[in-house]
Amino acid sequence: MSNSIRERVQALGLTLPTPGQPIANYINYMVSGNQLFVSGQIPLVDGNPAYVGRLGESLSDEEGAQAAELAALGLLGQLSHALGDDLSRLMRTVRLGVFIASSGAFQRQSVVANGASNLVVNALGDKGRHVRTAVGVSSLPAGVAVEVDGIFELLP
Amino acid sequence: MSNSIRERVQALGLTLPTPGQPIANYINYMVSGNQLFVSGQIPLVDGNPAYVGRLGESLSDEEGAQAAELAALGLLGQLSHALGDDLSRLMRTVRLGVFIASSGAFQRQSVVANGASNLVVNALGDKGRHVRTAVGVSSLPAGVAVEVDGIFELLP
Amino acid sequence: MSNSIRERVQALGLTLPTPGQPIANYINYMVSGNQLFVSGQIPLVDGNPAYVGRLGESLSDEEGAQAAELAALGLLGQLSHALGDDLSRLMRTVRLGVFIASSGAFQRQSVVANGASNLVVNALGDKGRHVRTAVGVSSLPAGVAVEVDGIFELLP
Repeated sequence: MSNSIRERVQALGLTLPTPGQPIANYINYMVSGNQLFVSGQIPLVDGNPAYVGRLGESLSDEEGAQAAELAALGLLGQLSHALGDDLSRLMRTVRLGVFIASSGAFQRQSVVANGASNLVVNALGDKGRHVRTAVGVSSLPAGVAVEVDGIFELLP
Repeated sequence: MSNSIRERVQALGLTLPTPGQPIANYINYMVSGNQLFVSGQIPLVDGNPAYVGRLGESLSDEEGAQAAELAALGLLGQLSHALGDDLSRLMRTVRLGVFIASSGAFQRQSVVANGASNLVVNALGDKGRHVRTAVGVSSLPAGVAVEVDGIFELLP
Repeated sequence: MSNSIRERVQALGLTLPTPGQPIANYINYMVSGNQLFVSGQIPLVDGNPAYVGRLGESLSDEEGAQAAELAALGLLGQLSHALGDDLSRLMRTVRLGVFIASSGAFQRQSVVANGASNLVVNALGDKGRHVRTAVGVSSLPAGVAVEVDGIFELLP
């Protein structure tokens, strides 16, 4: 397997986005000790917010999982940029936070969040295994369905 | 006091659950450096989701606090498993994240979250003291009222 | 520039609050290794919750940003206390979590969260740059509009 995150994502039939600038006064990622913190990523297509709506209302579980995958693709884009696209510099994925715009009655956040988890595990292999917190929120920036942030551990 | 987390929980009249498998593509806990990250835990009774509903609607504050305690019991179950049930390997509890399914009008997330905080402090003593973020979310996996995740610090 | 966080905040025309006691069974901040974790802070005026309501309903974007600034002021108050008000002991701000009480239709969490981010960057300078996750939640403790927590890195 390649140590290029970009190539690994391509092998899954996806294209790693080029990280854009944050839309507000924060930065995309930060290294603290051996940990890499990545800001919350939303689903983007050609740089524009995608999958607008809430689960349990206008979006199906399948669309939610696709939104989560797309947000996680942004996360991998930031990771790739931080590592110079060199997966050998990553010790492990530590944690994903998955926030899912949900109606009060929606109960399948785990199914939706798997769209993010599956991509990270499929792209990074054993180094993609992670702990996760998935919750349903009332709404998200730009009205998107899913936001994903992450903590990674770098090699010393 | 015993260094067995299981015995300490028993002394409070509760039973530490045996950690089950995650219901999706993630793992229960992860060690990164000296930190132990635990995935979001929901209230379970005999392995089944309990305390389904939202605060400010179908559940009372008291039921919410019980749900938070039960979710935190799951957190302690993961901690016990990670430490081989040996509290002497724990330096401190660092942080609890408490997510509470809430109506738009519910304002007593602190009362509910104390169900989790009190259990952790009562079971672990000084090593259970922690920082906390408690928020009201629209809904949670399996429709439960509370989800709790945690970061712990291990002895080097 | 002064190394006093209090003086830096004063230079912005604001007054750093004296950290109060948490309103429940948790602590204000915790040091773990080189990291300082601060509990979720809500907007307070003279110790009382301020900016009660939800974005997209009873509060304007501008009021939301003011609420976020006030919550972040509480965060800086905790940071100042933890550092003995000595900014030279801070390596960097790592991460802000910004939780915004929002209607299901509200989409401008980024604008609101900038109220917090701008204050932290304006007060701490380069050491204030951070990653961020901003989400819309259904409701928050005491009914306030914004809650902000943080992770900072201390000098070894």
